[in-house]
This record gives sequence, structure tokens and C-alpha cells, in this order.
Amino acid sequence: MVRVHGDTGHCWHGMHCAAVLGAAQATSTAPLLRAQLLGAARHTMATNLLHVPKPQGLLRPLVVPERLLLGPGPSNVPPRILAAGGRQLLGHMHPEVLQVMDEIKAGIQYAFQTQNRLTLAISGTGHCAMEAALLNLLEHGDTALVAVNGIWGQRAADIARRLGAVVRELWKPPGEYFTPQDIEEGLVRHKPLVLFITHGESSTGVLQPLEGLGELCHRHGCLLLVDAVASLGGAPIFMDQQEIDVLYSGSQKVLNAPPGSAPISFSERAREKILRRKTQPLSFYLDMGWLANYWGCDGEPRRYHHTAPINSFFSLREGLAMLAELGLESSWERHRANCAQLCQGLRDLGLELFVKEEKARLPTITTVRVPKGYDWKEITAFLMENHAIEIAGGLGPSAGKVLRIGLMGCNSTSSNVDRVLHGLRDALRHCHRSRL
Amino acid sequence: MVRVHGDTGHCWHGMHCAAVLGAAQATSTAPLLRAQLLGAARHTMATNLLHVPKPQGLLRPLVVPERLLLGPGPSNVPPRILAAGGRQLLGHMHPEVLQVMDEIKAGIQYAFQTQNRLTLAISGTGHCAMEAALLNLLEHGDTALVAVNGIWGQRAADIARRLGAVVRELWKPPGEYFTPQDIEEGLVRHKPLVLFITHGESSTGVLQPLEGLGELCHRHGCLLLVDAVASLGGAPIFMDQQEIDVLYSGSQKVLNAPPGSAPISFSERAREKILRRKTQPLSFYLDMGWLANYWGCDGEPRRYHHTAPINSFFSLREGLAMLAELGLESSWERHRANCAQLCQGLRDLGLELFVKEEKARLPTITTVRVPKGYDWKEITAFLMENHAIEIAGGLGPSAGKVLRIGLMGCNSTSSNVDRVLHGLRDALRHCHRSRL
Repeated sequence: MVRVHGDTGHCWHGMHCAAVLGAAQATSTAPLLRAQLLGAARHTMATNLLHVPKPQGLLRPLVVPERLLLGPGPSNVPPRILAAGGRQLLGHMHPEVLQVMDEIKAGIQYAFQTQNRLTLAISGTGHCAMEAALLNLLEHGDTALVAVNGIWGQRAADIARRLGAVVRELWKPPGEYFTPQDIEEGLVRHKPLVLFITHGESSTGVLQPLEGLGELCHRHGCLLLVDAVASLGGAPIFMDQQEIDVLYSGSQKVLNAPPGSAPISFSERAREKILRRKTQPLSFYLDMGWLANYWGCDGEPRRYHHTAPINSFFSLREGLAMLAELGLESSWERHRANCAQLCQGLRDLGLELFVKEEKARLPTITTVRVPKGYDWKEITAFLMENHAIEIAGGLGPSAGKVLRIGLMGCNSTSSNVDRVLHGLRDALRHCHRSRL
Repeated sequence: MVRVHGDTGHCWHGMHCAAVLGAAQATSTAPLLRAQLLGAARHTMATNLLHVPKPQGLLRPLVVPERLLLGPGPSNVPPRILAAGGRQLLGHMHPEVLQVMDEIKAGIQYAFQTQNRLTLAISGTGHCAMEAALLNLLEHGDTALVAVNGIWGQRAADIARRLGAVVRELWKPPGEYFTPQDIEEGLVRHKPLVLFITHGESSTGVLQPLEGLGELCHRHGCLLLVDAVASLGGAPIFMDQQEIDVLYSGSQKVLNAPPGSAPISFSERAREKILRRKTQPLSFYLDMGWLANYWGCDGEPRRYHHTAPINSFFSLREGLAMLAELGLESSWERHRANCAQLCQGLRDLGLELFVKEEKARLPTITTVRVPKGYDWKEITAFLMENHAIEIAGGLGPSAGKVLRIGLMGCNSTSSNVDRVLHGLRDALRHCHRSRL
């Protein structure tokens, strides 16, 4: 028999009230509270105890309209991945979950093209993986060189400063990328322990060439940390061959899983730096020593660390499985081809691409200058209201300057290119030009 | 037309290869990599570039067996909450998502019985909320007093130490709780800025009485931080009336949502301490200034902070909605009644409850001593294999000493009590007694 009171103002009393009362009597509880507790125990209406009533908004149904998410992420989630995230829970130490975690590791190793044993998913979103990367590598006083050509470099610099690192910055205007010469000058000048650089700068639409940077960093005694949140699966990256030391991404871009978990991997060089730390990482939740154990990366029996987001892992597994089934090369080619079609269509509309050089354009997120005399907010609002399509304005240094159109994973299709171009044409026709 | 290669070993080349090659030629790339890139550009099979093959495990279907999760959490998720988590994504700044976040805030305010404006959900699991609480309150050199009578105090002390706080500990043996006298002695002796205490000690099964502690702390100029991960919704707690300054919980216990988001709230006193900080919090991801803005708690226009786990928020909203529909008092009474039935059943089996005093027993998680001559691992494995029921052994200071049985939210039913008692009776009959 389940003995649950209905929600009809029944008196709530008995054991707990007695316990509450006992404790209240035993201590110097504030008089008001004490009187209330006494009152409850004396069989007044229990609802007197509840000063905060039931919220009415929560008693109405959840509203989730269908939209085509062609912003910089999250992107739409295919039914197979939604279904995986909607499966019943298992415990975070059950063998089937450990098996799923092993499969995620293998999927990340494939997506990153790495054989690193320290490969796993962070229990948080992409930003959380950025913190995990920086806080495990950096100790107070370590020098970090951060390549800033958009918001992600700014964020990495902010995080590294909070950790007590000495932060040096290399700057490029939004829309540009760093050459190996730029990087080498920075390495020579600042002698950093870590270089942070963004592969897919989603705020500006720049794809940073990575070739040679790993070798360059290692020649100067520096570790190479790469943010591939927006690019992974959409543009080639070869962690081992390119000698990248720490690489991370997010679940909600090309992998088409909901946000909530984030792939990350550390090279042996990075792993050794972590092992040589003099101080513990400033976070327990993101301590790579504990996470390596929980993810079976250290050869030791797995111990409880935290309750992982199990069904986010189920979704991430399916996202990685779909990428493996399609194949990395096919995925890269899909993103290249649809991005090319989009760029041509945008030019045909008379719009100007923000990133000048074709080879430096991120295939997953295309930036286009806000056309003269238009308000970007009107354009994005028009697309949302009239076409149920999300595109975004700029972010950080590109705010107000650009529109951003994302084509990621299952959203990177020729028909979505047609839909967004059709919507944009409509928006340009209807949105009022300013009088300036 | 979607131009995606099939997964049949097609050559991958063109624009990207050319870009990769250009960069490789321009820099001092390692000879091996350069030869590979040149090879690819010369129309060899593109799969030569991929040194890590597709993982076979990922190409098989996801396996998720159905189990009754009667451990210390996560607990089973009702179909309505699973369905919410399986809804299509929206953007993290869409008005419908901001509305869901507002509803979550109101739901947490009800569940916590607080009117604090700084109330929100952390984008991580319960441990992450523990870090968020400590790292926003504490600065380097601040003194934290941690009440340790199980694993959660130990964890909080570890986290506070990593943050550079001066950590003092109050100890009680596992299974016991702190009296106001214990706390007052600690406050007088150590003059802490923050007291950490666990309401529902899930490793030992203790329910800590909180009455009077807030008033006591404030009399001594200290903030009261309470971990209610395992107890929220299962035992009475009144954040405002009990003068709790920071309270947090998890999604995966009584709220029956998957792990991945964690309710938290700060009193005005705690908020002022945060505003008075001399240094930035050590984490950007968990910086309460940014989070307060993203959650609309500061009256300012909301700015992008991080991509939140949208569908975890959908699930959490439904978990909070179901608690509001049932009503807090009914939920407390449900947990009380089913826990009492379980305790009686365990005694009838000849087992000994770990927590002596009835009023100090956590209604959500019951601990029972491992019966003499039995191996706890055999008992939990037997229940899993033969009854598809998860119960757990001890954790931290209770490891090896106890079995833990959780009845949380929808799992707290009289029929589940019958099922687990039936399974345990079976286990005691079949598991070999040791020869010691």
C-alpha cells in the first residue's frame, strides 16, 4: 500500500513533525520558526509550514516548438539520438554504462584520430571541457599563451587568469587566422608552457590551420591545446599526426547530441605534465586523475568519482556512432560541399562573406556581414517568426557585425541550405532598412 | 542535392586537402605527416589519412536493460520525465527555454521553500553544485568549517582545500549526527566564514537535524551551507525559515530526473558575500555572477554565458513539476511511510539498522549493517542478477559495513519495499556465508 496523502490540504504531522519539534525544542531556534513548528505539531494545517506556494507556471505543460537550428549550436538532434537520451537510466557504475563509456572513448579516439589512452567525456558542456583542459594543465604561475581572434581565445584567457596562470595574448583581428610565424614569434617571446588556439572560431567563422603548430610548440617546450568545439567532424583534424596535446569538443555541434557532455583527450606529453603537478587541480569535479580512473584510462579498478550524466552519455554514444557509420571523410566532405553551396547562395543574394580566404572558412559555421542599412536583430527575428529557422548574430568581437549560419551534422544538407537562403531572401525583402 | 560520399572508401581530396597541404608546405611539418598529406593530395586513397579505424563496438546497438534502481541514486525516471528529455532541442537563448528556466527557478524556490532571487540550476551533476557553492563563497584564505560524518563532508573539505581555503573539520563517527552544541563549539573555536553540513548523508543514512543551525551560524558571523542532494523532497527542509544561506541538491534523487543538472540557491547574505569578493571565482563555468545573469536573477538583460544542457533542463522542469503537483507534504509523508515499512521489514529479516535513532534516519536512503558472515558484494550481485534490483554497499567511511537501499520519488512505493525485501530474503538464503 502506498500511503501518500492527496494534495487536498491534509494535515501533515507525525514522526517528522515530532523530530523537527524535538530539535527545535533542544536548540535556540528563532521564536517565529519555533512557534510554527509547535503549531504544526499541534495538528494545525500542515500547509502553514509552507511559506512558498506551488508555482503555477510549473503546473502547465512543457512547451517545446519544432525549429530548424541553423545557429552556431546547438543543432537539431536526430530521432535516434533523442531516443537514446530518453532510455531508462542505469547506475553510473553498472557494467553496461562502463561499456558505453568504453565505446564513447573509442568513438572520440576515432573522431579525434588519436590513440591517447587519456580520452573521455567531461560531465558538462563545451565550456566545461575548456575549463577541464586549462585547469588540469596549468598551475599557479605557469605561463599560457592564448591566441585571440574571437571570443574563445578571450574566454580561455579569462579562465587561465582565474587559475592564477601568467597569461600572454597573441591578437589577430576577427576574421583572420594565425600563421606559424605569428605563433613562433609568440613562443620565442613568451616561452609559454601551454599555447591555446581555436580550430573552429564560431564567433568569426574562421578555420585555423593547425599543420605544423604541434611540432613548433614542442620544439619550444610548449604544449598545444586546441578548441575544436565548433569544428570537430566538420573539418579535418588529426590529433596524433598534428601533435596536438589537448583537444576537446562539445556534443551539440556536428555530433548532434544534446549539450551536456564534452569529448576531451590528452597526449602522453600532457598526461606527464599532469602527473608532474606540484599542486592538485583547483576542481575536484574536473580532476583528470579522478576522471582517468572513472573512465578506465589508468589501468586501476574504477572507483566512484561523481554521478555522471548517464543519459547524456547514451546520446553522445549515438552521436559518435552515427559519425563512425558515416565515416569522417564523408562527414568532412558533406560539410565542405554544403558550406560551398551556402557561400555561393549568399553571394548570389548580394551578401558579403566575412572571412575573405576560402581556405580559412569554417565549414560548419558561415559568417556573413550584416548588409548595410539592415538591423541584424530584425533579420534573425524575421527568420525565427516566419520560417521557424534560427540563425544568429555575432558574438564577442563579431557582435553587430555578422550573421552566423550553422550547418552541422544532420543539419548540413543541401535542402537546409535552400531553406535558409529562401528565408534570408524573404527577410531581406521584408525587413525595414534603417533611415540612416 | 546532398553531396555526401558513401562509406565505401571513396577518395577524399580537393579544397581541404589543398588547404592542409598548403599549410604543411608553408611550415616545418614533421616529415612523416608531410609525406602523408602530400600523398593524400596526390589522389591516393584518403583513408590513408585515418590512422585510427572506426571502432567496432560503436557499430553495434546501444544496450540499456531495464532495472529497478534502489541504490543511493540515480533513481528510475518516470516516462513523463524521459519524454521531456527526449524532446527536440531549442537554442539556449530562445524565449521558450528562458521560460522553462524561469519555471525551474520557481520550482526550486518551492522545493527549497525559499524566496531567494539567486536560485537556479547548475549545468552539471550534484558534485558540480557542491563545487559551485564552495567556490563562489570561498576565497583564498577564508576559513571553512566542515562537518564530517560521512563521505560528503570529506568531499567538501577536499574541494575547499583545493580552493585555498583554511579548512577546519568537525568529526562524528559514521551513523551519527551533529548537535547544536557540537556546531557551536566549532564556531567559537574556529571562527569560520562558512559552515558546511550534510542534510542527507547518503553514505551513512543519517538525516541531520538543521533546526537552529542557521540562527547559530549567523550569531557567530558564519554562513550556513547545506548539502541536500539525497534528502530534498524526501524530508522537510525550509531554506528561509531555517536561515540556510546556500542550499543545493541534485536532479537524480527524489526529483527523478536524469543526472546532469543541480538546483542551487543563495540567501541575500550569501549573495552579498559573493558581491564583496576581492577575487573572481576560480571557475568561469560556475561563476555565480555570470550564472545569475543567464538565469535572469540580476534584473539585467540576459547575456550568453555557456550553452546550457537544454534537455536536462526540460527533464528537471518536469521533475519539479511532478513534485509540485504531488505537494511537498505528500512527498515527505510518502518517503516517511515507505521508509518505515522498509525498516520494519529489514528488522523482520533479522537485519540491524545502521542508524540507531529513528528520528536521525534519512527517509530516502536506508542503511543496514552487512549481516555477520556475509559478503556485501555477493548480496548486491545476487539482487542484480536474480531480481534486476540495484542496491548498494557502503561508500567512504561506510564501505564494507553497510548495505544501502534507496527509495526516492517515484521509486518510493510500498510495492518496491515488498520487492526489495523479497529479493533480500532470497539473497540471504542463497549467498554463501563465509567460513570465518
